Amino acid sequence: MVDEFAFIHSITPGAYHHQAILTGIGDDAARYRINQGEDQLVCTDTMVEGVHFLRQTMPPYAVGWKLLASNLSDIAAMGGVPDYYLVSAAFPEKWFDDREEIFQGMSDLADRYMVDLIGGDTVSAPDTLVLSATVIGHMTDHRSFLRGAAKPGDSLMVTGTLGDSAAGLELLQNKRHAGEGHTAFLIQRHQLPLPRLDAADLIRRLPYRAALNDISDGLASEAYEIADASHVSIVIEREKLPVSEALSQMPGEDQLKFVLNGGEDYELLLSVPSEAAEDYQNLFQKNHLLLTNIGKVIKAQGKPAVFLEESGRRAKLEKSGYNHFKK
Amino acid sequence: MVDEFAFIHSITPGAYHHQAILTGIGDDAARYRINQGEDQLVCTDTMVEGVHFLRQTMPPYAVGWKLLASNLSDIAAMGGVPDYYLVSAAFPEKWFDDREEIFQGMSDLADRYMVDLIGGDTVSAPDTLVLSATVIGHMTDHRSFLRGAAKPGDSLMVTGTLGDSAAGLELLQNKRHAGEGHTAFLIQRHQLPLPRLDAADLIRRLPYRAALNDISDGLASEAYEIADASHVSIVIEREKLPVSEALSQMPGEDQLKFVLNGGEDYELLLSVPSEAAEDYQNLFQKNHLLLTNIGKVIKAQGKPAVFLEESGRRAKLEKSGYNHFKK
Repeated sequence: MVDEFAFIHSITPGAYHHQAILTGIGDDAARYRINQGEDQLVCTDTMVEGVHFLRQTMPPYAVGWKLLASNLSDIAAMGGVPDYYLVSAAFPEKWFDDREEIFQGMSDLADRYMVDLIGGDTVSAPDTLVLSATVIGHMTDHRSFLRGAAKPGDSLMVTGTLGDSAAGLELLQNKRHAGEGHTAFLIQRHQLPLPRLDAADLIRRLPYRAALNDISDGLASEAYEIADASHVSIVIEREKLPVSEALSQMPGEDQLKFVLNGGEDYELLLSVPSEAAEDYQNLFQKNHLLLTNIGKVIKAQGKPAVFLEESGRRAKLEKSGYNHFKK
Repeated sequence: MVDEFAFIHSITPGAYHHQAILTGIGDDAARYRINQGEDQLVCTDTMVEGVHFLRQTMPPYAVGWKLLASNLSDIAAMGGVPDYYLVSAAFPEKWFDDREEIFQGMSDLADRYMVDLIGGDTVSAPDTLVLSATVIGHMTDHRSFLRGAAKPGDSLMVTGTLGDSAAGLELLQNKRHAGEGHTAFLIQRHQLPLPRLDAADLIRRLPYRAALNDISDGLASEAYEIADASHVSIVIEREKLPVSEALSQMPGEDQLKFVLNGGEDYELLLSVPSEAAEDYQNLFQKNHLLLTNIGKVIKAQGKPAVFLEESGRRAKLEKSGYNHFKK
């Protein structure tokens, strides 16, 4: 949406009535203290037919799954644990028979992480399916993993592989193939993404400061969020970007586009003290999770920026993230 | 929506992963324990253009106000106190310039009750404005005011006056007038309803058992919800129904229709032990809030039912509540 940041800024309260609010609008989720030792996290995410998904590329089950996944990913990006969710759904008649499938997709993902559906509102709508989920989670009160915690000298790391979801969408939309097994992998990464709650769990175990963000809008855009919030610049090394075997089957220019600007991978991007990078690597390796050191945080020269470095040359990346397909 | 109850039943989990859940899907809000002495309440409500409101009858400011009001009303109906809210909004281009007004309406109502906006998601939509709000509140852990708490012998009471909102909508849609001042009153009741958090506060102060529901879908429908959940029947006395001076200017058949089946009054309906009724009356009177004894709870003969009694004759009411206008 045009000017979303300006609009969100305009509706963000200047002051809160509740002192218990530790993080309000502006990070992956809101956080407030409920009692000594524990905070609560809340986030909400909306998916609109024709804007965030097309019926042709997303089966109803996947629509539900992905809605909840994107919310659980926000909890992961706060370093938290999800507990409950609520769903608001505006169903046009043409989606009426798909309601159970949509909720089944959410329910199966929720069961995987022991998250309970505790409320919602289902109403009718004239034309377009609109789904919103709200997830409530928790975390202990002495940790935080906000976007603004990065510092010059940090190592920039990312979980999993990048660009798979956008590649899957490309295959679906243009009926392309990436070869034996790879097509199915990329499509699954697009339709049934897994939030990185497993990685969040590992990150919590280490005692270091970490800035954390989930990659819902593409690496470049999410790196800018950390850079802006932390008042730093970020250098990403082209050759270190983790690409799946499946994505590596596709043409090189597609790969880079999907990795940098493809959204909805729901991997985690973290900025940690460079002396801690090895501990993260070891812990992730021990738990069979991929974690890749892809760059570093530097002092911002003027406005925070994100650079891509290749063969010793740095190019400034565009802020623009994932652009949902136009109607 | 056709068959909404059956659908909600079909998506309600058979068992919850979290023992902390005290009330899941099926009442006005969900409730879960956060620590000894305090529970948290969460509810979500959605408004769809053309289904829940029309642009011609609801200014943007009122759309925002009413969205939050309906959610705060659910917290009131649990006997709770609201703390935080999140908003998901899918904006089509034609509503783009109204975004600030919509959020201003919410914000002004929120300030009145010291409720903080802590998150949300604003996205674009093809045609129809869809707004969802999630409200988080709290209550002490030793009280509860569920729909299922009514017992035969109880007095049935209602706050404020009924039918005003539907009357206001009727005036707006058909360009009718109810006379000097009255038209403005009824339209305000429709566009800028006040959730009964003041009444919930008084109800909490008294030590009695009470079943509580808010009137969002009309008195008949809400009385049925209490009857069904409590396995009782309810008798409402026609001549005791509280009607505002403004509504009393309108034809008698309109009055009864609006009172019984007009929705969105957001008054509270409560069923309390008959010996406690006077204490409620006195407390409300002392606080200048209207509370009217409109009937009683009786044993259900077979299926729970709601009756309207007039001149000694009882007629069974239809369950059907407020029918949002068709497209």
